[in-house]
Amino acid sequence: MIYVTRREVFSSAHRLYNPELSDEENEEIFDKCNNYHGHGHNYVLEVVVAGEVNPKTGYVIDLKKLKKIIHEHVVVKLDHKHLNYDVDFMKGIIPTAENIAVAIWNQLLDRINEGELYSIKLYETENNYVEYKGG
Amino acid sequence: MIYVTRREVFSSAHRLYNPELSDEENEEIFDKCNNYHGHGHNYVLEVVVAGEVNPKTGYVIDLKKLKKIIHEHVVVKLDHKHLNYDVDFMKGIIPTAENIAVAIWNQLLDRINEGELYSIKLYETENNYVEYKGG
Amino acid sequence: MIYVTRREVFSSAHRLYNPELSDEENEEIFDKCNNYHGHGHNYVLEVVVAGEVNPKTGYVIDLKKLKKIIHEHVVVKLDHKHLNYDVDFMKGIIPTAENIAVAIWNQLLDRINEGELYSIKLYETENNYVEYKGG
Amino acid sequence: MIYVTRREVFSSAHRLYNPELSDEENEEIFDKCNNYHGHGHNYVLEVVVAGEVNPKTGYVIDLKKLKKIIHEHVVVKLDHKHLNYDVDFMKGIIPTAENIAVAIWNQLLDRINEGELYSIKLYETENNYVEYKGG
Amino acid sequence: MIYVTRREVFSSAHRLYNPELSDEENEEIFDKCNNYHGHGHNYVLEVVVAGEVNPKTGYVIDLKKLKKIIHEHVVVKLDHKHLNYDVDFMKGIIPTAENIAVAIWNQLLDRINEGELYSIKLYETENNYVEYKGG
Amino acid sequence: MIYVTRREVFSSAHRLYNPELSDEENEEIFDKCNNYHGHGHNYVLEVVVAGEVNPKTGYVIDLKKLKKIIHEHVVVKLDHKHLNYDVDFMKGIIPTAENIAVAIWNQLLDRINEGELYSIKLYETENNYVEYKGG
Repeated sequence: MIYVTRREVFSSAHRLYNPELSDEENEEIFDKCNNYHGHGHNYVLEVVVAGEVNPKTGYVIDLKKLKKIIHEHVVVKLDHKHLNYDVDFMKGIIPTAENIAVAIWNQLLDRINEGELYSIKLYETENNYVEYKGG
Repeated sequence: MIYVTRREVFSSAHRLYNPELSDEENEEIFDKCNNYHGHGHNYVLEVVVAGEVNPKTGYVIDLKKLKKIIHEHVVVKLDHKHLNYDVDFMKGIIPTAENIAVAIWNQLLDRINEGELYSIKLYETENNYVEYKGG
Repeated sequence: MIYVTRREVFSSAHRLYNPELSDEENEEIFDKCNNYHGHGHNYVLEVVVAGEVNPKTGYVIDLKKLKKIIHEHVVVKLDHKHLNYDVDFMKGIIPTAENIAVAIWNQLLDRINEGELYSIKLYETENNYVEYKGG
Repeated sequence: MIYVTRREVFSSAHRLYNPELSDEENEEIFDKCNNYHGHGHNYVLEVVVAGEVNPKTGYVIDLKKLKKIIHEHVVVKLDHKHLNYDVDFMKGIIPTAENIAVAIWNQLLDRINEGELYSIKLYETENNYVEYKGG
Repeated sequence: MIYVTRREVFSSAHRLYNPELSDEENEEIFDKCNNYHGHGHNYVLEVVVAGEVNPKTGYVIDLKKLKKIIHEHVVVKLDHKHLNYDVDFMKGIIPTAENIAVAIWNQLLDRINEGELYSIKLYETENNYVEYKGG
Repeated sequence: MIYVTRREVFSSAHRLYNPELSDEENEEIFDKCNNYHGHGHNYVLEVVVAGEVNPKTGYVIDLKKLKKIIHEHVVVKLDHKHLNYDVDFMKGIIPTAENIAVAIWNQLLDRINEGELYSIKLYETENNYVEYKGG
């Protein structure tokens, strides 16, 4: 079993806000992340795929193919977007790093057919990141 | 003459848009950076101050003081904000990295009194950055 | 289950020295790390907390709270200190990266009440780091 | 149980090519990585050893010793070499990151006698890396 | 005057060898960099363009255009190539970092028409880099 | 003219303290950097040499030679040392980053005979660094 990782970067705006809470509660919970017009990040995404090495290619999965899948189903949809308004698969989700990571997992899970998706790591800043392994 | 640098990070949203141009021209010039709700970055700022070493302290300027000046006049005003809407000193300015760097220079120039401001370096992404030395 | 990580940095001096061994043995085992007056590092600390996402906030734990806990119980006590002399919870411990990581784990274990402490990662240099997951 | 990591860097050329396939198949599978004279990378290697802390030293394994083992059995043999032609333990192996990581694991497994080898992480570029934990 | 920088990465093989010298001299001067089949690097390239900010766009030069110029005239020609054999504009040049930087400068000088080329910075490893400003 | 840079790292302890001032003044000026037993850093040093490319070698200066000079005259003397007590060429100097950079410049200036020393860049932390170009 080998774990192969592809790293991608996307730049998005977001606002942390729960519409089921009052403005005061949102302000108290999310503080400066609750800024009305949003703020933004260069998100760093690492997608890890686990599998056996194919003896014909020496690859678990060709990283050029993995890159293409990530671009089509994740990067193009998130990069240079506002995560609260512009992304179909983020509708109704508070765009914390935790929730974005789970949403990216769900986008990719059935689309990776060589090896299998093992984890999603998402850096929001150089000091804050999350990891999700499904389940 | 010694050059001392303080590095800070802030996370902001922005939209590249020139109100004097048509929507089509904005779209053509700014492309995905023109997304209506904006997108965002973790901006990395380096402020360089040049001066002689004070023999009493061994410092050009105490970096704790420089940090405080940058926080008060730059970071607090830009971090977790939307640069098109929330920042007094960015009103009417297209928030490209070039223009943000010049605006930060103008914010800091008269507020640094030990040594003198030498340059502003601003990373918008890990692949794109600008530098401004005044004049 | 999601894993959230907060990264912090602290700058400390230390000397590797076991008082139960002779000077010759200390010299042989610890070599240049045994320098009498000590040397130092910018330690990079990553604290990982595992838990379920709270649907109200989208957080496992608010990283602003986690940062505050780490600052109060770890960073303030280690940063700009000599680990052999200045730190209450390091008394009698050889300050190797391994032992510092375990000591930080013990400092934090009972103080994190949303999610639970999963691991401590500690970089001593860009080439050497350790990880501890308890037990 | 503590995990200690030593990071090393080596600079090698390689060509992805399977001699059992036709030139057309090699071209189709390996694309630009199949360039006849090869291309190259600064590979970043992380060797992780797991074990108990020795109370006498505070170490799982002295990282100076681990560094020496890695240098003698891995770095000297791969650094400034062409992986398809110059490395005894890579003969007959397609030098993908996956296969290099497994080969390095095999080089080190029996040579680490304090703690035990836990994983090999190998970065081929800043965006692509693999991890191998044996078995 | 503002300085804008675009960073790109390419992965190449090279061998340091001067055909006008004997094998012994080559070995003595270039040491392990003289390995017959070559070795390789992930080169990090920074292209700096200096100019005035265009008030219509807020740009010195649109970095998307700069990226395209660098890709077409530099990256495509060097990435996944052996610098001694595969690159038209490197023929007859010893591919040291110094000489590669000058060759890239010459490739780009007349092709940048907004602002002007100010410098080429080229990292061969994380510890070695060169900078060239023309003339 | 080409600028070539060699990067090195050393790990040292230091205490900021001016013996000509009272304890109160030292405390006020240097704050936590004045801790009695000192603290420490992984200093990152960049030595830049400027010169013409030698057509025989393609080098300004062989970086292996430059590395050796820096190791012998700087790294061996500072690495794993306490800068206030253990370093001959730092005696009587307050070990701020500014003063260390000037001291390293003086150590190297006459020992570099191919090209000439252009600048010393010294990172004390990832957020604070200084640069000295002589004079």
